[in-house]
Amino acid sequence: MRNGSPDHDLTLATLHHSLTDPALESMNFLNEVASRYPAALSFASGRPFEEFFDVKLIHDYIDTYCGYLRDDRGFGDAEVNQVLFQYGRTKGIVHELIARQLRCDEGIDVDPEAIVITVGCQEAMFIIVRALRADERDVLLAVSPTYVGLTGAARLADMPVWPVRGGPLGIDLADLALQIGRVREAGLRPRACYVMPDFANPSGVSMTVPLRRRLLDLAARERILLLEDNPYGLFHDGSHLPTLKALDTSRVVVYLGSFAKTGFPGARVGYALADQRVAGSGGQVSLLADELSKIKSMVTVNTSAVAQAIVGGKLLEHDCSLVAANQRETAVYLRNLRQVLDGLRRRFPDAGGSRAAVTWNAPSGGFFVVVTLPFPAGDEMLERSAREYRVLWTPMSHFYSGHGGLPHIRLAFSHLTPDLIETGLDRLAAFVAAQHAGS
Amino acid sequence: MRNGSPDHDLTLATLHHSLTDPALESMNFLNEVASRYPAALSFASGRPFEEFFDVKLIHDYIDTYCGYLRDDRGFGDAEVNQVLFQYGRTKGIVHELIARQLRCDEGIDVDPEAIVITVGCQEAMFIIVRALRADERDVLLAVSPTYVGLTGAARLADMPVWPVRGGPLGIDLADLALQIGRVREAGLRPRACYVMPDFANPSGVSMTVPLRRRLLDLAARERILLLEDNPYGLFHDGSHLPTLKALDTSRVVVYLGSFAKTGFPGARVGYALADQRVAGSGGQVSLLADELSKIKSMVTVNTSAVAQAIVGGKLLEHDCSLVAANQRETAVYLRNLRQVLDGLRRRFPDAGGSRAAVTWNAPSGGFFVVVTLPFPAGDEMLERSAREYRVLWTPMSHFYSGHGGLPHIRLAFSHLTPDLIETGLDRLAAFVAAQHAGS
Repeated sequence: MRNGSPDHDLTLATLHHSLTDPALESMNFLNEVASRYPAALSFASGRPFEEFFDVKLIHDYIDTYCGYLRDDRGFGDAEVNQVLFQYGRTKGIVHELIARQLRCDEGIDVDPEAIVITVGCQEAMFIIVRALRADERDVLLAVSPTYVGLTGAARLADMPVWPVRGGPLGIDLADLALQIGRVREAGLRPRACYVMPDFANPSGVSMTVPLRRRLLDLAARERILLLEDNPYGLFHDGSHLPTLKALDTSRVVVYLGSFAKTGFPGARVGYALADQRVAGSGGQVSLLADELSKIKSMVTVNTSAVAQAIVGGKLLEHDCSLVAANQRETAVYLRNLRQVLDGLRRRFPDAGGSRAAVTWNAPSGGFFVVVTLPFPAGDEMLERSAREYRVLWTPMSHFYSGHGGLPHIRLAFSHLTPDLIETGLDRLAAFVAAQHAGS
Repeated sequence: MRNGSPDHDLTLATLHHSLTDPALESMNFLNEVASRYPAALSFASGRPFEEFFDVKLIHDYIDTYCGYLRDDRGFGDAEVNQVLFQYGRTKGIVHELIARQLRCDEGIDVDPEAIVITVGCQEAMFIIVRALRADERDVLLAVSPTYVGLTGAARLADMPVWPVRGGPLGIDLADLALQIGRVREAGLRPRACYVMPDFANPSGVSMTVPLRRRLLDLAARERILLLEDNPYGLFHDGSHLPTLKALDTSRVVVYLGSFAKTGFPGARVGYALADQRVAGSGGQVSLLADELSKIKSMVTVNTSAVAQAIVGGKLLEHDCSLVAANQRETAVYLRNLRQVLDGLRRRFPDAGGSRAAVTWNAPSGGFFVVVTLPFPAGDEMLERSAREYRVLWTPMSHFYSGHGGLPHIRLAFSHLTPDLIETGLDRLAAFVAAQHAGS
């Protein structure tokens, strides 16, 4: 209903509640905080490294993909033009290349028909959450701290998210079982648990293989799905662990794929791998991917064919291995990770014990390290840090529902150079020292 | 909840109800029917003409846009690479070029900040519907017959769509007023009415200017928004009418823009122009576009920068006029329209009167003509037409809620050549004759 007042046309109170939800405010805050403090050095956003970006690559990828259509698939010029320009298959056009990549890099053997290519992993999250939220009884579980994009997608589908303790190992299975029980006791239905087993955002933590197996067993026993999000898994130091999907023998895992870091964010290509079988009322059985595809058709029709061609071209240029395609990037991220860990050690040597200690975790890959400060570090502290010390980071409170004032901050180092990391850590140390002296 | 049965993992009954909704089935049916009958000539889908598609254009558009960033905006190479590769502004990057296009082609004077660039017009529809559906009291009105993409977007947001009679003029204002009253009497809130005033899909009808003005007055008086969808308006015979947004003096219109036909579908770029002012609880006022942007960030983060660069390049190459950019395409569509109308006249000369008459409307532009057959023409008839007469069309029943067996069919002629139109109409005439003889 419009409001007839001269100074406005609508009121927020009559719009969807997600718009006043902290999760959505948070995503925008995190996206835009960097632009509000242009002089500040940013450990805030997990953006990929930029030095290898080159528009020429986009042209090359498109040509490579078109060449593949012509030479390997036997398409004529008109057909190639049609693939890139015209409306296309709702589930996407590079699904076979993605299946090859999953086999090559992850040992996941997948029917390409079980893949729905999406506008970034975010759309994959939204459509799976939308599918699983049949009515007000459906509940999503999520390892806490939780990526804000998942929380936001759930808000848009009016699906509550119940936090599950992440803890130092990535997931506390006892708490997961406890929360599933509490959901059921409340007369509700636990549908799935969202997890990021490799170099999680924001915690940086990876789950061990035995823990992964026990998580899969628990999910199968409790009849919930696992939504496995894996944007950072390939950026490891050689100690690659199998994904949940690679270990999944009973189709409990819906795998959410992202090319934002292994391809590039500006393409906006991701996917959901959903090989679950869905029984209809008439006894027919469909792939969950095909059900998700129907929802996708009403959100974005299909993913840009040009964007898919770019990702397809990049895959083809590296024999469908993103490990191979990202050798330079992986080296940069591991160098930056070491630089941050070494830099923290040099600046905060008294890591053991005292109440004034600054501590941190030590992931072996990914984009993030979590630092624990000797004082609560929320948005106001971040503003002061940005304004007075010209350094940005992310308050971990953004990744918890209903908690504020936590002493944890996330440092993202993926887009920085060694010099900038040193300068940034100097500024962070100065901020911490001043803050601590003043507290 | 997963079901432990060996032959399936989930049941449709526990997934979102949209998945068993005719609107979503319909979109998929319409998208894929052509692929099920490869030998059939298709009047079914409103795809743009393909002969001007050329991958070289994609390269040119990207280069043109990058040149603009360098030469007109003063960006260095690293910044240009960053724009195309990195995460970007949620509301998009070519908003200023779109504002210039709206001024140039439509006489719409717009603050570029009121534009949210989306993954095709479909995402624009979904985010505005999601924003307006605050709770179960909110109702969307839509001119009937209605584009299935709108109905599908509303289903995903759990928002009911109440049909408003379209009739021969494009909208029956008395029925709109009646339906608004009925919604309110039911204790519900009419939030907006979806309209396509120019060469509507599927009816082909355009509203007169006086009717547009009365519609705007009614919306302002009743305090509902108008969602104006305009994918075909530029394909006219010289008699261009002002859009509702161009006539909108009281910000009742949210304009939904599409480049699927004026650019190309494979880019997947559209937008919402939403200049309404939204009052928050603390007295602050924001643009509706900024609220929509928050929702968009949880659906797709942002629209592919490469896709936007392609649309931006095309705009720049034609001084931001899509009328100029589409001269060849417009000539093709008008030629095809004449060919269809002349062809129908030749094949069905007894258009006046008898119960056996085949009749049709005569739009002056756009992609569609509606033909009324002397028998009901639903999906089964379509299958028979495709199988036995090798010609596809769209049953109009797909565009009505809860009606079947209507005698109306939509002919889309945009992607055809004159020869194919003649062959297709021959097949259609043979199908109609046989059907009629057998009925």
